[in-house]
Amino acid sequence: MPELRKDPITGRWVIISTERAKRPHDFMRETVTLKGGFCPFCYGNEDKTPPEILAYRENGNNAPNSPGWNLRVVPNKFPALQIEGDMGRKGEGLYDKMNGIGAHEVIIETPKHDATIPTMTDHEVESIFWAYRDRLIDLKRDKRFRYILIFKNHGAAAGASLEHTHSQLIALPIVPKRVREEVTGSKNYYQMKERCIYCDIVKQELEDGVRVITENEAFLAVSPYAPSFPFETWILPKYHESSFEESLRLEYKHLARITKDVMRRIDIALEQPAYNMIIHTSPIAEVNNDYYHWHIEIMPKLTKVAGFEWGTGFYINPTPPEEAAHFLREVGD
Amino acid sequence: MPELRKDPITGRWVIISTERAKRPHDFMRETVTLKGGFCPFCYGNEDKTPPEILAYRENGNNAPNSPGWNLRVVPNKFPALQIEGDMGRKGEGLYDKMNGIGAHEVIIETPKHDATIPTMTDHEVESIFWAYRDRLIDLKRDKRFRYILIFKNHGAAAGASLEHTHSQLIALPIVPKRVREEVTGSKNYYQMKERCIYCDIVKQELEDGVRVITENEAFLAVSPYAPSFPFETWILPKYHESSFEESLRLEYKHLARITKDVMRRIDIALEQPAYNMIIHTSPIAEVNNDYYHWHIEIMPKLTKVAGFEWGTGFYINPTPPEEAAHFLREVGD
Repeated sequence: MPELRKDPITGRWVIISTERAKRPHDFMRETVTLKGGFCPFCYGNEDKTPPEILAYRENGNNAPNSPGWNLRVVPNKFPALQIEGDMGRKGEGLYDKMNGIGAHEVIIETPKHDATIPTMTDHEVESIFWAYRDRLIDLKRDKRFRYILIFKNHGAAAGASLEHTHSQLIALPIVPKRVREEVTGSKNYYQMKERCIYCDIVKQELEDGVRVITENEAFLAVSPYAPSFPFETWILPKYHESSFEESLRLEYKHLARITKDVMRRIDIALEQPAYNMIIHTSPIAEVNNDYYHWHIEIMPKLTKVAGFEWGTGFYINPTPPEEAAHFLREVGD
Repeated sequence: MPELRKDPITGRWVIISTERAKRPHDFMRETVTLKGGFCPFCYGNEDKTPPEILAYRENGNNAPNSPGWNLRVVPNKFPALQIEGDMGRKGEGLYDKMNGIGAHEVIIETPKHDATIPTMTDHEVESIFWAYRDRLIDLKRDKRFRYILIFKNHGAAAGASLEHTHSQLIALPIVPKRVREEVTGSKNYYQMKERCIYCDIVKQELEDGVRVITENEAFLAVSPYAPSFPFETWILPKYHESSFEESLRLEYKHLARITKDVMRRIDIALEQPAYNMIIHTSPIAEVNNDYYHWHIEIMPKLTKVAGFEWGTGFYINPTPPEEAAHFLREVGD
């Protein structure tokens, strides 16, 4: 019997299909492979991107926009939003619009063209999170912005147009709908219970155990109870923290370790799939609060059946999260 | 300058990108092509599907589950939900679930394996809508159901696993989130204005003209003001009607004509793309109301950049709807 399960935060119901239950090898996966060719993110091509906003370099390699960097943040050459201008909010009859003001940046995570999170060192992965934090803190000073989305598309099937490993950041003058839903859902729960719903989820998942993939001192990786996608994975801080950039200094080390571990397991179980990774954090106006709990969501791109889901907001997931967690738990040890 | 536009019903903001503006030939389209092979939906293979629930036959071809039908509705052989059983609502700690009770049916729209909406006759397309209506009316009698989703996935890229033209129906014991958002949004508007927001949209679009694709006596086809996807198209009844199945008898004829016309234009402009078509109608409990207005949404599958959009609910659309409407208007005449 298939099950309907409700995401406790947003109230979204998903069908967990059992008749069609799929194990890792049942998916028509596209393993991410490198095609090569010219790469604007490699050493020596620094002038092929807009000038860098931030770079991490070893001592002695201090000339900007030249090789020697370990991580580099640049404006997106084809930005979805434009950094300069005013908001220009206005109506058109019953419609509302505003200028597409915002920042769109690329985090070039390493000079190594073919690196992936599991093949990087702990230190390299940790620097990615530090770069996210540095950019968040800087961009939050711009009063036009309400939310900063950080995400990583890995592989063409997940929307990556360049194969050299990178993440993206979009600073927005609005709070995206999905973020607003999560914040509202967790606020409602807090009003009812005076507890953070994510803290309660962490507690219940640690007790139940069946959806736990791995954990360390600071973080827990689980297959969520009502995942929209097969092998969807969440990484949550074990203790309450409302925003990514306010995380304790030591934690990025633990976050790097668990992210590497999770991505290694996903790569083994699903044979290097394309995936999206998204940082979910509090909106800028409510950075410190008791109800929202920042976390990472990872969605391997395994199914094509998205059209109907897009249109309806209704998801059919062929892999129960307990099975996904079981595979990912077993595969890595 | 890119624009941020707000969907007036759900409040979702989308980026309408201008730097990256894309015309039909800029998309890496996959034209839907037929691969052939065994087809369970063709004449003579009626025993390869579960027994039919409904069939339209000419006089004299009355034996069920044998050739001679013009349209046939059968249970999905691999249903996402199960028709028999009780709801079994229960909690698991802080989580909620219920049995996956529901109906999952397939509407085989014609015996012609290679037909598409533009190549069918007006009468054939009209029968599809009559079949939707017949099934809606029948399934609504089952008190366990709250919503009936009707959708069509055309082409593998849009999630179709069989190429013989067909639609699907899923009867659900819950109202999907996206439907609930639309209904709530239009209810809020009605409370403020005492007018249906879709009626206001029809009026404004007819006045503005720039997003109109085509129209007839009963229906209007437009590129919506804040589309999530390039070339997204809505077909709306011109006069207020809250539910698809309560539509006036004569209207399915007009609906068939405009749907054929719209799909013909999309096929020419975008070279037979894969697409999803979804009927948006009122939930069963509020079939007749003054605030919601049934309509059809069509989403050609042109972009791959879906991963980030899924995770965030935030959409970047590279084709302004005024340009999409212009192409579709010009191409067909």
